[in-house]
Amino acid sequence: MINYDEAYANVLRYTFDFGVETVALLESNGRILAEEVLADRDFPPFDRATKDGIAIDSKALEKGLERFKIEGLASAGMGQQQLHDFHHCIEVMTGAIVPENADTVIMYEHVTIADGYATLLQEARKGQDIHVQGSDVVLGTVLLPRNSRIGPAEIGILASVGKSEVQVRKMPKVCVVSTGNELVAVAETPLPHQIRRSNALSLCAALQKEKIEAFSIHLKDDKASIKKELDHLLKTYDVVLLSGGVSKGKFDFIPEVMESLAVQKVFHRVAQKPGKPFWFGIQPELKTVVFSFPGNPVSTFANYHVYFLPWLYRSMDIEIPKTEVVFDGTLQVHPPLTRFVQVSTENKKGVLWASPVRENGSGDLTSLALSDGFICLRPRDKAYEKGELVPYIST
Amino acid sequence: MINYDEAYANVLRYTFDFGVETVALLESNGRILAEEVLADRDFPPFDRATKDGIAIDSKALEKGLERFKIEGLASAGMGQQQLHDFHHCIEVMTGAIVPENADTVIMYEHVTIADGYATLLQEARKGQDIHVQGSDVVLGTVLLPRNSRIGPAEIGILASVGKSEVQVRKMPKVCVVSTGNELVAVAETPLPHQIRRSNALSLCAALQKEKIEAFSIHLKDDKASIKKELDHLLKTYDVVLLSGGVSKGKFDFIPEVMESLAVQKVFHRVAQKPGKPFWFGIQPELKTVVFSFPGNPVSTFANYHVYFLPWLYRSMDIEIPKTEVVFDGTLQVHPPLTRFVQVSTENKKGVLWASPVRENGSGDLTSLALSDGFICLRPRDKAYEKGELVPYIST
Repeated sequence: MINYDEAYANVLRYTFDFGVETVALLESNGRILAEEVLADRDFPPFDRATKDGIAIDSKALEKGLERFKIEGLASAGMGQQQLHDFHHCIEVMTGAIVPENADTVIMYEHVTIADGYATLLQEARKGQDIHVQGSDVVLGTVLLPRNSRIGPAEIGILASVGKSEVQVRKMPKVCVVSTGNELVAVAETPLPHQIRRSNALSLCAALQKEKIEAFSIHLKDDKASIKKELDHLLKTYDVVLLSGGVSKGKFDFIPEVMESLAVQKVFHRVAQKPGKPFWFGIQPELKTVVFSFPGNPVSTFANYHVYFLPWLYRSMDIEIPKTEVVFDGTLQVHPPLTRFVQVSTENKKGVLWASPVRENGSGDLTSLALSDGFICLRPRDKAYEKGELVPYIST
Repeated sequence: MINYDEAYANVLRYTFDFGVETVALLESNGRILAEEVLADRDFPPFDRATKDGIAIDSKALEKGLERFKIEGLASAGMGQQQLHDFHHCIEVMTGAIVPENADTVIMYEHVTIADGYATLLQEARKGQDIHVQGSDVVLGTVLLPRNSRIGPAEIGILASVGKSEVQVRKMPKVCVVSTGNELVAVAETPLPHQIRRSNALSLCAALQKEKIEAFSIHLKDDKASIKKELDHLLKTYDVVLLSGGVSKGKFDFIPEVMESLAVQKVFHRVAQKPGKPFWFGIQPELKTVVFSFPGNPVSTFANYHVYFLPWLYRSMDIEIPKTEVVFDGTLQVHPPLTRFVQVSTENKKGVLWASPVRENGSGDLTSLALSDGFICLRPRDKAYEKGELVPYIST
């Protein structure tokens, strides 16, 4: 039995690059950018009026002029206009190109307009209310580095440089397999000794958050059919997530079946609670990774977040979030097991406090809805005390 | 011109209930639950073995027995077995019903098995390794209250009580409208005085995070056609989000057109930066809400998060997140404008610090990718200093 840190390091040793694909702009939301995105022009692309008002040549200000004949109008979407005389002005709308020979914008609130003339109500400053060409970024600047996570702000930037299609990292093809003869479909009414299949659905929902639409299948506890199905799944998917079938029971064939399918065990059993019987392996020829989680709901949920997500993020070359929170409880964590304790966090005056939630062991599915993550408590002689900083894994 | 707090309160005065709909279980991920979800049986539904091993009657322990004839096997998915003699045991697998007359489970690691007999290697405690029927929750307990946000843990719970279909709150039908003659489609190459349409796409991407698939349309600056289109959109959608067309320019018809379509202005112009020209209105007969954001990218993005999201959450009867962070900068915010400052937050030893990002005004789209939210700084005489707690709006 290895400890948590060894298990974690071992999982991260088997990450892979799943390649690149091109998707429509809005479909890239939530995905990982696979290309470097450059400014295809200056931003803004021209000297842009930032107020509705008039544009003048600042020479007029130097000469103390206060009244300007209105020569014309420049609105957003018009080509550049020209100011022909510094005694004149051109009305400009927000977003318009500042006219040729003009260099200062004065908003309507600061002028009066009458009889084709604009009169200043207060002093103006040369260059004011102009968003100067290239002042945000110049042509060729890196706007988004490779491996950025794409969100609404990035979608705006991609749109502005013409990326109607975006190169993103391919997500791994994931299959979620539940095992156990006691499980029935959600829509069925279970007999007294049966329960509904919930872990696989919970995993599929978690994978959706990562923009992975997983295939999900249930296998009965029959060695021959499990072997046949897994053989096919290993060849079809990049990742197989199993729930159940890895403890020491007579029907827990998975480790044995895996070995017969040339899946090499990297480890089995980790000194942790929940999730001790976690089995992790790799089919090196197919490069298929197998996470076999214990069947208890809390175990599966914890292991997914503790091991699978970091594996996914590392495979995508994005940062694995490392968060610390302040423990709002006391707990003795005896060697050798690392504890993943369900907590509910609260931001109190900028400080993240984590309180353990009431729970009844790793079979207690209902406690998961009360928590927003796990804190990771490595075993030690001294009890964990209120106020200590502890690592936190968000769920 | 009203201030931010007045504008915010006014927006929240016009929230609506958009009803309820039934969706398939996995499609409810990220949605708001519209029904109370009760335990349809005890959890666990039977006394459940939590280890692989043997089940015995604790009477045997009282009498000092250490060696048990193996009578049979109980695995997960089998009906309840019966222990016929307290000198005997039944092998049990994790998840199995504890056999009738048995009340204690001893894991394989603590017994040796030979010749059809199991011999204890260490003392056992009456009742151990059994997850007692109803010990998590009893039949009829509320597992998920109405208006919970559904995530992977809730999906697991819904599955476990047989909800293959789930009643969720209907999301409003949202239309995103961009205006401005300077805008061209993302796939087009803009002329020097044109720019690509980015705000609408950014809003659509933000709405996707709320599980709203918005309809998006671009309108040229032509009063008659804007009026015709808006008339149709107001009748078809619950919410119209506009970007552009509300400042004081000659082509900013929106406020006028809105009034002609019986959309009542609730307010126009807010003492805030960015986003001062924000226009908000309601068509009371149609109950259509109109958020008309200024066209600058940062203004639209800020106003969406500052006003629209709280409006949406209040309409859904879910909590509006209130977060405070510690300011890592200094800034003077002169009356009368409230500032929404783009920041990047970092968790340092459990404390959330917010540093302002480099930005070049409300036209600077590129700065949005560097920030993860806005801090809200109300105007005051004293400068904001490093270490102060300030409200934070995540983006």
